Amino acid sequence: MTGSVTVAGLGPGDPHLVTPEVTAALAQATDILGYVPYVARIAPREGLTLHPSDNREELARANHALDLAARGRRAVIVSSGDPGVFAMASALFEALEAAPHHHDLQIAILPGITAMLAAAAKLGAPLGHDFCAINLSDNLKPFALIEHRLRMAARGDFAMGFYNPRSASRPHQFARVLEILREEYGDDRLISFARAVSTPQETITTVTLGEARPEMADMRTLVILGNSATRRVGRWVYTPRSAQGAA
Amino acid sequence: MTGSVTVAGLGPGDPHLVTPEVTAALAQATDILGYVPYVARIAPREGLTLHPSDNREELARANHALDLAARGRRAVIVSSGDPGVFAMASALFEALEAAPHHHDLQIAILPGITAMLAAAAKLGAPLGHDFCAINLSDNLKPFALIEHRLRMAARGDFAMGFYNPRSASRPHQFARVLEILREEYGDDRLISFARAVSTPQETITTVTLGEARPEMADMRTLVILGNSATRRVGRWVYTPRSAQGAA
Repeated sequence: MTGSVTVAGLGPGDPHLVTPEVTAALAQATDILGYVPYVARIAPREGLTLHPSDNREELARANHALDLAARGRRAVIVSSGDPGVFAMASALFEALEAAPHHHDLQIAILPGITAMLAAAAKLGAPLGHDFCAINLSDNLKPFALIEHRLRMAARGDFAMGFYNPRSASRPHQFARVLEILREEYGDDRLISFARAVSTPQETITTVTLGEARPEMADMRTLVILGNSATRRVGRWVYTPRSAQGAA
Repeated sequence: MTGSVTVAGLGPGDPHLVTPEVTAALAQATDILGYVPYVARIAPREGLTLHPSDNREELARANHALDLAARGRRAVIVSSGDPGVFAMASALFEALEAAPHHHDLQIAILPGITAMLAAAAKLGAPLGHDFCAINLSDNLKPFALIEHRLRMAARGDFAMGFYNPRSASRPHQFARVLEILREEYGDDRLISFARAVSTPQETITTVTLGEARPEMADMRTLVILGNSATRRVGRWVYTPRSAQGAA
């Protein structure tokens, strides 16, 4: 049996958003690895070993999957959303870079519906023009870089999707992000908070930057900020396809 | 019968990347509208009317779908990729904004796998850190705004995904884009050209900016530019999860 590592995106939560490609990979897996709540989405079956692990153990998980593949197992690492967007794909290649003896292993990355695009669809079309995706967690980068990117993206008048806006370990930082955005944009721009998109706990709220409060976000929230043209139509939020000039 | 308009993302081409949610919507449709090659992906069946139309007819198509829904039909507009990323969702809300009598119609946007994330998965994890998506077509925005956004995104050291890099009607513009990127970054940054991702015609090439040539892209190409840390490991391209400081 030829071993392999597949990193599969489970989408934001709704099983109807899991691609058939991912469903097929899960059915052929001998081992499934991932953060506890993602592995909990996989039904147990004979011949399948589940390996749930904590978050912040991404590199150890990636190394474990490579070792399983080297022993001939078909290992699937599950990510929520898309594995290439602030998820497990990069961690796997970091592990591979440090393990040249594994470079010939069979590897595949299977895309999924990332939270930003699932949230955008529920809102309407807030990312209908050029946009950025920014991870607001400073676990792996300095806050100064986050601030720099926010200001550059603002000056480019990009719409933005923010991942990991706020956690218990850094409750004050998102308040600073909102301040930076108000400095760049003023109070009128639309900002949407999409929590637990596509799950039974889904809530979605749109306010102006002036009305936005840090408590509106937690780690399950995806935040979407409009560009200068983003507006409401009925209950929807959308960004027109046309733009007239530089910001 | 209650009418509805659904905008459904078909993904980049491979049927295994179509979500079950979209498949169900297509099965319940009475009318399917869209650009000719996307409607060609839908199997005809009794009770289903197909309405293929040309590109650049997005607003007329959206109005047609709203009129069908007002007459009690279940209209599905098909987009390639994700409907919210440089596709039909924004055009639908533009049409809705101009038609207040349609504001109560039932509307849904169904997300799909966008070409940028399908291409990233085939490459490895080039968008593993903060990134931007930029539409390089100047059909609906001035080239000065494209240049401004490229420079702001470059100064933020974002990875980037470029949609619609080059067409027969504007063959020289992508050469200018490459010049701007070389002015900002120098010659060493990795750039990948992913054509017809997930279809039998798929080709994927990665070179440095210094080696990049305008002819490497056409309208079926999705271009991905790395950030300052993006690198190769074996046959893969990836961007590490960590970053040390501002660009």
